Amino acid sequence: MKIAFLGPHASFTQLAATQIFPDQQLIPQFSILDCFLAVKSNLVDKAVIPLENSIEGTVSMTLDYLYDTPQLTIEAEAIMPIAHQLMIHPLQHNHNTLEKIYSHPQALAQSFHFLNTNYAGTPLQDYASTAAAAKKVSETPEQKIAAVANSFAAKLYGLKIINHNIQDFEQNHTRFIVISKKKVKWNAVLKKVGEKTSILVTLPEDYAGGLHQVLSVFAWRKLNLSKIESRTLKKGLGKYFFFINIDGPQREVLIKNSFEELKSIGVDVKPLGHYAEYILES
Amino acid sequence: MKIAFLGPHASFTQLAATQIFPDQQLIPQFSILDCFLAVKSNLVDKAVIPLENSIEGTVSMTLDYLYDTPQLTIEAEAIMPIAHQLMIHPLQHNHNTLEKIYSHPQALAQSFHFLNTNYAGTPLQDYASTAAAAKKVSETPEQKIAAVANSFAAKLYGLKIINHNIQDFEQNHTRFIVISKKKVKWNAVLKKVGEKTSILVTLPEDYAGGLHQVLSVFAWRKLNLSKIESRTLKKGLGKYFFFINIDGPQREVLIKNSFEELKSIGVDVKPLGHYAEYILES
Repeated sequence: MKIAFLGPHASFTQLAATQIFPDQQLIPQFSILDCFLAVKSNLVDKAVIPLENSIEGTVSMTLDYLYDTPQLTIEAEAIMPIAHQLMIHPLQHNHNTLEKIYSHPQALAQSFHFLNTNYAGTPLQDYASTAAAAKKVSETPEQKIAAVANSFAAKLYGLKIINHNIQDFEQNHTRFIVISKKKVKWNAVLKKVGEKTSILVTLPEDYAGGLHQVLSVFAWRKLNLSKIESRTLKKGLGKYFFFINIDGPQREVLIKNSFEELKSIGVDVKPLGHYAEYILES
Repeated sequence: MKIAFLGPHASFTQLAATQIFPDQQLIPQFSILDCFLAVKSNLVDKAVIPLENSIEGTVSMTLDYLYDTPQLTIEAEAIMPIAHQLMIHPLQHNHNTLEKIYSHPQALAQSFHFLNTNYAGTPLQDYASTAAAAKKVSETPEQKIAAVANSFAAKLYGLKIINHNIQDFEQNHTRFIVISKKKVKWNAVLKKVGEKTSILVTLPEDYAGGLHQVLSVFAWRKLNLSKIESRTLKKGLGKYFFFINIDGPQREVLIKNSFEELKSIGVDVKPLGHYAEYILES
């Protein structure tokens, strides 16, 4: 299978994609939109994109494109703890004399307290991506520089990790989803931690209590909503759609009836799929 | 007053901050977290940070820090249409011979179709930020390069805009908020388009229908919710808080009673403030 992912090479999304699809052909894309277009136009079978907390893309775009591309559904969710590594060229021997540390601004921000404590005074240099920073270090062995990037980038570019897991906060994570047009099963050798159903709900008009009415349909059936996010429709101000996750195993009758009732009161429901949630390694 | 903003210089956040606070001292910050810390520790009076759709920060962090910093409230929201400009050094005369176009990956992605149509074959080069790309163009007059950045960056670095508003999609916008510890009034000479109340709601436990019960409190009072976003609490899996906007003028009695009822059933409510919503120029 061909799997698109949000690039560049050695991005966090690739780190996720290689764990989800260890034996498939992975094809980097320039943007989240390109990932959607690649799946939509059958250039690839599936795509791996960030859904939440990414430093590599405005993930509200993911919700907007899910809305705009009704042919695509979600096949899986994967959660990856965010972990940053400080790495140098293997020919550099003394990392106490670092002259500059390169990375994506948000990766530097997420490691700021560690860097400020352990490399006080070493200038931090913004770079387009964590992966590009690692690449730069690999290409300039004569410079006393380091990069903050992920373990995959260190491996890909042959760099030496001098400090592991330097992120300032634990328990921060990124969520990725696998999207596709036609469901083709694959053998995920991943740790499953749950399952859920995702839907997109559009209210007929902007009226007080509209969302409450929608949630009533799920509440008395004891369907547990684990995520709800409103997005403004681009067509006009004051109109919204909602991305909603219903936790737990597929309860077909309850969910089918909920959708029917919502449709009967003028609410548009687009099922995005029932799928498993996996934990990845960082 | 001293106003912190998410930097670097000539970022979209600065473009917003200069319109909201044209006569105040603006101080760039390295990260969204630094903006919160600067306000919390009284280094600045207020901060301007992205709340939605930014290409300059993981804005889910904004929600998390609002939750983690109960001393701070929201004073205003400002909406800015996203507009990208293609700019060159004024000493470059022939822009048909561009050799490279620099920008933040997401700005390049958002202008991809324009660039692909009008500058087919010209390589696109990822850069740490749109502002840094503009700065690079200003510092290398001898190179036939261009940057995709905002109009403020063009002005700041003395660049010539050769194509205006090259973004592929209209009606895309970024939302910013002004946060502070102590409300100090300022005269906003901005176009007001609405007002709202923001709250953070934490459910006592993860039970089906919990959110529905919360929304019931607002629904029968006809308080219109214009935004709702769930975030996982970092303390443990399966626990959430919700960022909720209630649209319209302040209805003190209704809102006060809602909050009291929510508290009485064990729901934690943190009011983030009642404030005006403004439209900015791009």
